[in-house]
Amino acid sequence: MKKLAIAACELCESPGGPILWRNALARVAAVDEPDYPGFCRVILNRHAAEMTDLPELEQHALMSVVLAVEGVLRAVMRPDKINLASLGNVVPHLHWHVIPRFRDDRHFPAPVWAAPARTAGPARAVDTAALRAALLERLGPSLPA
Amino acid sequence: MKKLAIAACELCESPGGPILWRNALARVAAVDEPDYPGFCRVILNRHAAEMTDLPELEQHALMSVVLAVEGVLRAVMRPDKINLASLGNVVPHLHWHVIPRFRDDRHFPAPVWAAPARTAGPARAVDTAALRAALLERLGPSLPA
Repeated sequence: MKKLAIAACELCESPGGPILWRNALARVAAVDEPDYPGFCRVILNRHAAEMTDLPELEQHALMSVVLAVEGVLRAVMRPDKINLASLGNVVPHLHWHVIPRFRDDRHFPAPVWAAPARTAGPARAVDTAALRAALLERLGPSLPA
Repeated sequence: MKKLAIAACELCESPGGPILWRNALARVAAVDEPDYPGFCRVILNRHAAEMTDLPELEQHALMSVVLAVEGVLRAVMRPDKINLASLGNVVPHLHWHVIPRFRDDRHFPAPVWAAPARTAGPARAVDTAALRAALLERLGPSLPA
């Protein structure tokens, strides 16, 4: 019997980055983007494309994780602004970008997907251990993958 | 006595577009963007910059409006994807972009803020009356401004 050709989903098949926290619903992955230290993605564990594909309780639970990440990034990195986005045009597996923005970062005030405003912002260190600790404190224990 | 110089906030001082629906917390404005028919913004009525500046109940209520708009746009316009974003780098007054995306639109699969992928997508009509009616049905009566 021939196998069905199933299009691979990158976020079903790989974690999507180093995992900072996870529960049964979703995981928080660190994004390796040198211009954007602290950039995190909140990725739904199972496959769904849109927020309105989820039952209301899961929508609420997923946004609680997204906003916990926002709160942690504000506390740890003191950005000038937080950018939140769920796009998924390339990888239609529900994931939220949570991006700390600074007035002197590479694209400010434009979105990070626009043409850069300057060659590069000043290097900023991100304290990943502090992010992990703050996520644990706000969200509770992190489950193994 | 001299007046204090207060920086004007565009979304405190103007509705932000033709209003499709509003309640005490937020309003849904139609965005006039010829490449993106159906593009809506959900704008908090009072001034706040970040989701985590709101109490949890208001975060939840605001997201309920955002996701009602997502549901209405999916039902009325049948897009290939919905894009959600809260950026506010230029106007730091909480507002959500809710954007129906089509595979042949001007930027797909890139975000609408990126360089265009083609000169223009095919013209699509948006039935604003249908959007208003569907918002009323999902969200209940719309309050006057």
